Amino acid sequence: MSSEALSARDAIGAATFEEVMAMPAPPPDTLLTSLAIREFEFGELWNRGGITRKERRLVTIACVAETGEAASVDAHVYGALHTGDLSIDEMQEVVLHFAVYSGWPKATRLDAAMTTQWQRVQEERGDATKVPAPAIPSNRLTFGERDARGAVVFDEVMTFPPPEPDIPYSEVGVRGFVFGEMWDRPGLTRKERRFITLACVCAADAATPIQSHVYAALNSGDVSLDEVREVGLHCAVYSGWPKASFFEAVVRAQWARIESEGGPRTERA
Amino acid sequence: MSSEALSARDAIGAATFEEVMAMPAPPPDTLLTSLAIREFEFGELWNRGGITRKERRLVTIACVAETGEAASVDAHVYGALHTGDLSIDEMQEVVLHFAVYSGWPKATRLDAAMTTQWQRVQEERGDATKVPAPAIPSNRLTFGERDARGAVVFDEVMTFPPPEPDIPYSEVGVRGFVFGEMWDRPGLTRKERRFITLACVCAADAATPIQSHVYAALNSGDVSLDEVREVGLHCAVYSGWPKASFFEAVVRAQWARIESEGGPRTERA
Amino acid sequence: MSSEALSARDAIGAATFEEVMAMPAPPPDTLLTSLAIREFEFGELWNRGGITRKERRLVTIACVAETGEAASVDAHVYGALHTGDLSIDEMQEVVLHFAVYSGWPKATRLDAAMTTQWQRVQEERGDATKVPAPAIPSNRLTFGERDARGAVVFDEVMTFPPPEPDIPYSEVGVRGFVFGEMWDRPGLTRKERRFITLACVCAADAATPIQSHVYAALNSGDVSLDEVREVGLHCAVYSGWPKASFFEAVVRAQWARIESEGGPRTERA
Repeated sequence: MSSEALSARDAIGAATFEEVMAMPAPPPDTLLTSLAIREFEFGELWNRGGITRKERRLVTIACVAETGEAASVDAHVYGALHTGDLSIDEMQEVVLHFAVYSGWPKATRLDAAMTTQWQRVQEERGDATKVPAPAIPSNRLTFGERDARGAVVFDEVMTFPPPEPDIPYSEVGVRGFVFGEMWDRPGLTRKERRFITLACVCAADAATPIQSHVYAALNSGDVSLDEVREVGLHCAVYSGWPKASFFEAVVRAQWARIESEGGPRTERA
Repeated sequence: MSSEALSARDAIGAATFEEVMAMPAPPPDTLLTSLAIREFEFGELWNRGGITRKERRLVTIACVAETGEAASVDAHVYGALHTGDLSIDEMQEVVLHFAVYSGWPKATRLDAAMTTQWQRVQEERGDATKVPAPAIPSNRLTFGERDARGAVVFDEVMTFPPPEPDIPYSEVGVRGFVFGEMWDRPGLTRKERRFITLACVCAADAATPIQSHVYAALNSGDVSLDEVREVGLHCAVYSGWPKASFFEAVVRAQWARIESEGGPRTERA
Repeated sequence: MSSEALSARDAIGAATFEEVMAMPAPPPDTLLTSLAIREFEFGELWNRGGITRKERRLVTIACVAETGEAASVDAHVYGALHTGDLSIDEMQEVVLHFAVYSGWPKATRLDAAMTTQWQRVQEERGDATKVPAPAIPSNRLTFGERDARGAVVFDEVMTFPPPEPDIPYSEVGVRGFVFGEMWDRPGLTRKERRFITLACVCAADAATPIQSHVYAALNSGDVSLDEVREVGLHCAVYSGWPKASFFEAVVRAQWARIESEGGPRTERA
């Protein structure tokens, strides 16, 4: 809508809100609901292309769950489940993946939202089915096998060698749980997992993990530079401009690094 | 009160609490309510000069809304509206400005607090007036006009040239919404907007935005070095000492940079 | 349990949950409660040695209170008080210490949890005793005496000289309140205070305070390198892997610095 007047945004935004959130748009009675939510968030942001609506869901849910704002978490989980953009099995994986990148307490809030909003969606469908048990069982390896598997998956996901298992964080935390179990689960594609990860490291804004995950997303070829930049704008709205500003600076630096290495690993292969 | 004994603080703090929060001080029955809240927060911090009480409100509301603690958000918004330090029209602008720097989900919490606390204040006055519609309409430019306006306002506010509109974050996010619309609104002075911004970038602690906004606040001449340092102490109490420590390190570095450039831009002009 | 299959974790985790949290483990009906909570958080993490259960409590309460998730805060405070791992007098000090490193609004949430969970524990014991008044009175020095005391305590705790009292943050905030009052209180040992501090600076992830507190913890000899690394893994679970990753990078760098200085100060003395 690049040549139109901005005044068209409100009507577009109200319609888009209804489609994405599966509930009526809030009346434009405060500056936040009118200018920020109806006009900008739904009138501009959610109408953009660049990444799929499912991918915007993954980024949004991670950002919103990171804030811990219960009403917003509930609303976005409801929208994702009601529209079918995320299945309940996928949502289970989103909660686990989010736990790793934002911690168990905030994930507990997201897990509760999954349960209550799933029940709401099911009741509206006249179906009383509870949240089904996790579709994919947890790991049944020995600890030694898990460590070896974690090293392999780390290399595949991060596109550089895994850390030595010389401290508890690296051994149990990184090689053991995160790459030996979580990233190895098939319930979400690797590309989908990257969108959750990018949103979480942007929100956490710890310098080194943003660098390594932005690098890995781009260098693996899973996510294009344009897609990462859509994530940056999307995170600005949900996590605030300062976090997005830092994220974008990292994207520029990591892309320069990848170009200096001859482009993404997949293209070189 | 520099030569008095610290033991005078509790009585001073209780009186100051009542004045600022427009409700009785909590009894000193836990270590937090006695030493931290009555004695330090209200007995020392809120009795300091350096910035106005309205400016302390802007910093406080931003810091508290950033934590998402509903009861504290409600209490500070109530105090600001009840005392008249912030009008309801100004509070609308605070919510929008805060949304940009801390994200929509936390701003939604602040927006709800504005509505409920305004109703409470009005009921106490025997007035049933709802929150009035935003006093200033949103932008009616075309997208191209907004981009041009954003570039001008960016330069004025930040005191350095705007980014090229080459990625979605810079084009739609920075030049479009933040500087082409939000910072251009007249509902708060530019100096007032800077206090909200400083508190938000301190809380977010993303390295580059703290640097650029501290630099801009000082280099524009809108906020003096002494005022920025009051903000640092104030943020320590509401966002924690680690965030304030990093903020103060940035203030020292950016002030040194401004001095090496010959002092604030306004003084040079 | 290094040679066993990971499948033993669920039963171990359920038993450990009951012991630590003083309530039945959640049923394994979502991926979060099964794999993340029962199997990893309680089946692996809380069964590790390296630091005491009381020390894990201090780290956990700081991390969880930093997220602001009310239900999780209540649950962990209940567990700590019910088991007696923390006395009510110690818990009062934890709240004050946490306020300094994460700010008053989140500490207000923790203070409320202390009061409600203490009442719950007391009612279960058939005792109606309220939270007792703070065992240790606040400071009765003059402001000048406090500043001098703060300088001494800063040097002892941080193992390097205090900042000049040339700005409000350093004078009133650091030398005055944090070291002239809070760190000087005898209600927790200095080692215990360090665990709370490490968890808070990890969660805040502001670059310089993590560096100085990790350095001080190690250089003082109060906390060993192995203990700090247990804290890193523990914080991964409660604050997310990105924060822990940055923390661990700081630990490596600060330990290298201490080694280059000839080892921890206590060993050199």
